[in-house]
Amino acid sequence: MLFDGVLAAGPVRELVSDSAWLRAMLDAEAALAGACADTGLVPRDAADKIAAACAAARYDPAELGRAAADSGNPAAPLVRALTAEVGGEAARYVHLGATSQDIVDTAAMLVARAARTAVLADLDACCDALAGLAGAHRRTVQAGRTLLQQALPTSFGLVAAGWLASLSAAGSALRSVVLPAQLGGAVGTLASLGADGPAVASAYARRLGLAEPDLPWHTDRGPVAALADALGRVCGSVAKIAGDLVLLAQTEVGEVSESAEGAGGSSTMPHKQNPVAAISARAAALQAPGMVSTLLTAMAHEHQRAAGAWHAEWRPQRELLCATGSAMWWLRTSLARLVVHADRMRANVDLAGGALLAERVTTALAPAVGRLTAHDAVAECVRAGGDLASALAGHPALGLDRERAAELLDPAGYLGAAGEFVDRALARYDAEKERR
Amino acid sequence: MLFDGVLAAGPVRELVSDSAWLRAMLDAEAALAGACADTGLVPRDAADKIAAACAAARYDPAELGRAAADSGNPAAPLVRALTAEVGGEAARYVHLGATSQDIVDTAAMLVARAARTAVLADLDACCDALAGLAGAHRRTVQAGRTLLQQALPTSFGLVAAGWLASLSAAGSALRSVVLPAQLGGAVGTLASLGADGPAVASAYARRLGLAEPDLPWHTDRGPVAALADALGRVCGSVAKIAGDLVLLAQTEVGEVSESAEGAGGSSTMPHKQNPVAAISARAAALQAPGMVSTLLTAMAHEHQRAAGAWHAEWRPQRELLCATGSAMWWLRTSLARLVVHADRMRANVDLAGGALLAERVTTALAPAVGRLTAHDAVAECVRAGGDLASALAGHPALGLDRERAAELLDPAGYLGAAGEFVDRALARYDAEKERR
Amino acid sequence: MLFDGVLAAGPVRELVSDSAWLRAMLDAEAALAGACADTGLVPRDAADKIAAACAAARYDPAELGRAAADSGNPAAPLVRALTAEVGGEAARYVHLGATSQDIVDTAAMLVARAARTAVLADLDACCDALAGLAGAHRRTVQAGRTLLQQALPTSFGLVAAGWLASLSAAGSALRSVVLPAQLGGAVGTLASLGADGPAVASAYARRLGLAEPDLPWHTDRGPVAALADALGRVCGSVAKIAGDLVLLAQTEVGEVSESAEGAGGSSTMPHKQNPVAAISARAAALQAPGMVSTLLTAMAHEHQRAAGAWHAEWRPQRELLCATGSAMWWLRTSLARLVVHADRMRANVDLAGGALLAERVTTALAPAVGRLTAHDAVAECVRAGGDLASALAGHPALGLDRERAAELLDPAGYLGAAGEFVDRALARYDAEKERR
Amino acid sequence: MLFDGVLAAGPVRELVSDSAWLRAMLDAEAALAGACADTGLVPRDAADKIAAACAAARYDPAELGRAAADSGNPAAPLVRALTAEVGGEAARYVHLGATSQDIVDTAAMLVARAARTAVLADLDACCDALAGLAGAHRRTVQAGRTLLQQALPTSFGLVAAGWLASLSAAGSALRSVVLPAQLGGAVGTLASLGADGPAVASAYARRLGLAEPDLPWHTDRGPVAALADALGRVCGSVAKIAGDLVLLAQTEVGEVSESAEGAGGSSTMPHKQNPVAAISARAAALQAPGMVSTLLTAMAHEHQRAAGAWHAEWRPQRELLCATGSAMWWLRTSLARLVVHADRMRANVDLAGGALLAERVTTALAPAVGRLTAHDAVAECVRAGGDLASALAGHPALGLDRERAAELLDPAGYLGAAGEFVDRALARYDAEKERR
Repeated sequence: MLFDGVLAAGPVRELVSDSAWLRAMLDAEAALAGACADTGLVPRDAADKIAAACAAARYDPAELGRAAADSGNPAAPLVRALTAEVGGEAARYVHLGATSQDIVDTAAMLVARAARTAVLADLDACCDALAGLAGAHRRTVQAGRTLLQQALPTSFGLVAAGWLASLSAAGSALRSVVLPAQLGGAVGTLASLGADGPAVASAYARRLGLAEPDLPWHTDRGPVAALADALGRVCGSVAKIAGDLVLLAQTEVGEVSESAEGAGGSSTMPHKQNPVAAISARAAALQAPGMVSTLLTAMAHEHQRAAGAWHAEWRPQRELLCATGSAMWWLRTSLARLVVHADRMRANVDLAGGALLAERVTTALAPAVGRLTAHDAVAECVRAGGDLASALAGHPALGLDRERAAELLDPAGYLGAAGEFVDRALARYDAEKERR
Repeated sequence: MLFDGVLAAGPVRELVSDSAWLRAMLDAEAALAGACADTGLVPRDAADKIAAACAAARYDPAELGRAAADSGNPAAPLVRALTAEVGGEAARYVHLGATSQDIVDTAAMLVARAARTAVLADLDACCDALAGLAGAHRRTVQAGRTLLQQALPTSFGLVAAGWLASLSAAGSALRSVVLPAQLGGAVGTLASLGADGPAVASAYARRLGLAEPDLPWHTDRGPVAALADALGRVCGSVAKIAGDLVLLAQTEVGEVSESAEGAGGSSTMPHKQNPVAAISARAAALQAPGMVSTLLTAMAHEHQRAAGAWHAEWRPQRELLCATGSAMWWLRTSLARLVVHADRMRANVDLAGGALLAERVTTALAPAVGRLTAHDAVAECVRAGGDLASALAGHPALGLDRERAAELLDPAGYLGAAGEFVDRALARYDAEKERR
Repeated sequence: MLFDGVLAAGPVRELVSDSAWLRAMLDAEAALAGACADTGLVPRDAADKIAAACAAARYDPAELGRAAADSGNPAAPLVRALTAEVGGEAARYVHLGATSQDIVDTAAMLVARAARTAVLADLDACCDALAGLAGAHRRTVQAGRTLLQQALPTSFGLVAAGWLASLSAAGSALRSVVLPAQLGGAVGTLASLGADGPAVASAYARRLGLAEPDLPWHTDRGPVAALADALGRVCGSVAKIAGDLVLLAQTEVGEVSESAEGAGGSSTMPHKQNPVAAISARAAALQAPGMVSTLLTAMAHEHQRAAGAWHAEWRPQRELLCATGSAMWWLRTSLARLVVHADRMRANVDLAGGALLAERVTTALAPAVGRLTAHDAVAECVRAGGDLASALAGHPALGLDRERAAELLDPAGYLGAAGEFVDRALARYDAEKERR
Repeated sequence: MLFDGVLAAGPVRELVSDSAWLRAMLDAEAALAGACADTGLVPRDAADKIAAACAAARYDPAELGRAAADSGNPAAPLVRALTAEVGGEAARYVHLGATSQDIVDTAAMLVARAARTAVLADLDACCDALAGLAGAHRRTVQAGRTLLQQALPTSFGLVAAGWLASLSAAGSALRSVVLPAQLGGAVGTLASLGADGPAVASAYARRLGLAEPDLPWHTDRGPVAALADALGRVCGSVAKIAGDLVLLAQTEVGEVSESAEGAGGSSTMPHKQNPVAAISARAAALQAPGMVSTLLTAMAHEHQRAAGAWHAEWRPQRELLCATGSAMWWLRTSLARLVVHADRMRANVDLAGGALLAERVTTALAPAVGRLTAHDAVAECVRAGGDLASALAGHPALGLDRERAAELLDPAGYLGAAGEFVDRALARYDAEKERR
């Protein structure tokens, strides 16, 4: 918990906690009993007794965790405890036809579903904020930077629109990941349910609101990998955006800052205002790729249950959900705190004394005076330093008056399709919001 | 090349080669000139001259590679060489409005498209082979193994159906990855194309047959990540299947083997027949997760062009396509060579002398003699060793005749929903083939 | 905690817990005050008051964690709480000259030291057990398997000696990682300590029993990377050994098993005895490479304090220590439970009916009858199946009697340098134990 | 090759090429024959004939690579080709007692040795350059930046000394990695060499100048992991340094630049000077962590030869050496091109109008006017903006004259132990150079 304020911020931490997992495992057991009753394999009142006994508060995660060491997973001791809790005749119907992995895998999907909902809520809020920035700064001039060097003007609106497009697409990909229920019994045949196996599996998925797979996926980890992939992509998108925010907030750049009562200040260095939220978003996102690679490596499950690769999923899957949630929550926080310094953006563009527009001047004059002449004269003026508009206006080869020179050097006049791209990004985002 | 026979087998190696990349970059340049002509920015005959000069054979990848060191990417020297090749008035229209990254990113998508097609061809062939195995062995009894211990009977058909479902889903995910063209100019505004930027970008994408994005994605690496994710998932699926094949081919298991003239034998150990193809598939697939993690990490592109993270994509993206292609090609080869030893499958089930069916016997007898009595009596018989059917038939508490005991011990009678699951997997696969 | 019984077993979990971290941060603060007193910067009694206030029980990790969100790290709120606790005049000497990162980095090294000690205790116990196996089974014949196919005989003693050499070397590498104290102040100059900075840093390291670095390493993450590398290597060694144990324990191989009261059994499948400890060791070890890669990626700290990469270390470093501890603890448990079935080892060698010795027979007879003749005749006998000794004795081209044939087919006579290699591994291990 | 100019720069690419690998495999075969002759197992003239036939030019990597597909590794077809080349009686002594993995693993170590030498040559050159910078800029004032915000003054010499300490330590770790020869025969017993196995293995290692291991390490991948770990750490150090250089070269910071004829310029944006070398160093280094994680994952070799994990090492090991070489070569290039703009460093410190020294002023005045009074008054002056020295001198509560105020605000007077730390780093480096 010592690091959770920074690295596990937001609602996801609780949604992937032990008690959430326990709740999910018990939901799976209750749904199984209910599904068996639906198909007549279990008396309805036994199923009801089992469902009633599935109250997470009665079971202690720490104790179950300790007991899990003997069987190698926490579902086995939970089944024992649940069976004892149910008692009587109904007890024999607990966990009917299932194997531990069925419960753990299904619980993993239930936990992932809840965590995803929270991640997407923060992601959607970020997209709304980015859409707001894109619209508001559609024509706010900013230096476009390639390889961290100023290159040509762009608009901060286009920058924000690019962030929006990236994050929104990553969100859509996450939203579309299918989360299936898992029920296969010891080796995936549901043999102990006789002819009713498929019907039970179907009712089980329906009751849990999870997708029903064609066949058990106990050693096909596609669903786990698809989720990991999508989370990794969301984190990559956050890392890009938060990284840009940190760069823009540098003392020497100063184009954005995070403004927050009590956060980001330094008691010994009063001039500092650290973009703590963007930094924390980066910190969370940075951890994702390694976890994705662990989960992809762990796809090589042996035969009908993996001897280690399955168990190796639990921790990185939980941590990856948590890191993505934290990254998303911090980005949302950063955007909520964001102050945009349009004046510094413009001042930074002017740092190079108009050199960012050299390409434009050359292109504009080439038809009249020839490309080579234009290029050489403009380069000469840039190198000379001083006021570029005057230099250009005074250059004999160019035939420019000062007014036209100043017009050509106006960065706001050289934003190309920036505005149209902003509009497209906003239109796409609006359309996607409607579809959600 | 020394390792390519093992690690870069199949068609993909050539499709991601230097000459394929060069071809793709030149296709991008030709399409750009054509798109500019479509919108009237460039005379049609100049565009035609540029297209004609885009013949890859005229340019030397090694020389371009060397020259790339100065600018930091291979597009810059290629543009210089192409401009010189075009010559005359048309030369000034080469690369109009574009930046090096536009060409490299677009080429990456063209290369990926060709490689994906090849990967999917091998993947589809694997799925066909797996569907064949699933159907043919729908009722072939095999030991289901959990944690590498025999657990309950399953059918080899269900095992193959599980492989099919996994690979086919991974293939669908790969097939659905969107590969967009990239055109944004220096900072993503297409400023030097004036008002025509978006129209040129649209024509450019159309000519290349790539998706047209809403706005330039030069520093939104979602498309790169989505491709990497999908390739990583395909490799994970191959790792599972090939891993199982290697385990099944063990001397002591012997349930499958690869039969190939000249391959997999050992000159000094004539009794060995190594499953070389499955091993090579695993070797290729094992390398994917690390590359996916590099590509996800590299998503944090700074501002309007990344200072290193962009360049860091080129090699892992190429290698990941190549590794996936090799994994797929070797799996296809392994399945083509595969000999299924149904007799050994059955013999292995019998190794435990019927103990795999203990659960079934207990369940069957519980209603008549009581669950506890049944459980204890069956366990006693299993522990006694010897012929289990006789022991069960002779046990006073169970009241079984030998015929009924033998019936209960027949693994073929305890396959649960295996057959139905096989049918579902095949039906799904047929439906997906129609949709392709 | 739900998964900790499986994935975070053994003593390390507690040693990297919140309370251990809190204890370590307070130890760092106390040592800093003491060091300042040593050099006369702080009155001794103020330092003593600070040390007295450094009792972890007074501070709540959860509350500090929440407060950490504002400053971006848990040391800042801890310093505030400690300052309040100290009170009076002495309060102004709390945290003198230090920055939050000094305390967190130093605490990380203290935590790592304690965790390493525990990891090494389990590692040493494993090595002792492996040395015991190597000695006891110096001449126990086992099938050597390449590519999971039986190849030539080896001895189980040599197999165990190989495990020993691997683990012992990985342990030595971990033991030799240098864990330095960190003290640099805000930007690594210790400016606020005036001329006394280096003397304080020296006393601080000495008091903590950590290495004294030449200069602050706040953004040189070599020490963090070196630790991660060594832990990753230990986990790789565990993954190899535990993987072999799982393979040897397969139903069809049966050469080892884990014997444990209450662990590894299956209530519904009484014939199963899962090697739960080896499986759990694998599960823990599998997670290490992704964490190592995160920590290596995070080495790119910007300037004098990283904006995210530093924070991104905390979780994977803790988890990596914990996973290594769990891997080591489970391997120790597996070896303690290990039952070696020498009879099955021998029986498995015999499965191939002597074919594993074909190379030896050919080599032995080549001088007398010619290499080609020997090779063809032996191959013919192997292919014929049946009793190989009789076949060889009866082959007219070979001139062998049955006794000599049987002798050549005795795997125990074809173990090459296995015994000598075992002896060397044991001698090396003994020498290393003395050096520890 | 298209990307090699950027991503595989420097000498290592050639040293890990196919021809270098082929040369190394043939060196291993020649050494094996010689070692067998040393112990009398092979006639000396046969060994000489084999050595003579080991002339790499006679063998075609592409053809061997293709043939490798059948056996799963390139050593098998090479042995066939070499045997044919030797011909006659001597041919039967080719590859005596060895297995393919012996040759490939030993060759990997020979290739690694040559590549490491080249990496270290560039690394040493970088360290020399960094030592030069540290000494020359021992007192060059620069803004120390934490979380990318200016914090307190430091010296560029200390920054360079920190880079030096990091890189030099990473180099020492790489230098100390032990590279052992591998010889074990099919399963690690050297059985076919009879009693002479260990003596042959010893002579083999001696002839190759590689370390002699206690026992074969064919499935103990410690040596491979140790090398990967050390390379990963070197790359992490490069990533930090090159990352800082890129940040310092930003248009808005401008404290360093790379000056190179023809490199880093932009034809369309004449004002740009991209730090291409530092960017390329970052690009190479960024790829390392994923490869390290693949190599650590691949440590789980099964039994006496891995079914895929071994083969999976070849490509990442080669690429990792190559990436490290490229990272090192580019960093050396960047440092050779480096221009330090000490005036911009100073000007950037002054950007905050003395606020970086607020801590110092407060501390200095606290004894006279009280800590709280000092803090509040100084903060008030900072907030007021304008000339801070005048403001401080004019503040009634502080009793400062302008001269003293200016002195306190001189960043050069508040560098703490920066100079001493520089001296220590240089002394350590000198001592290490002597030990090399």
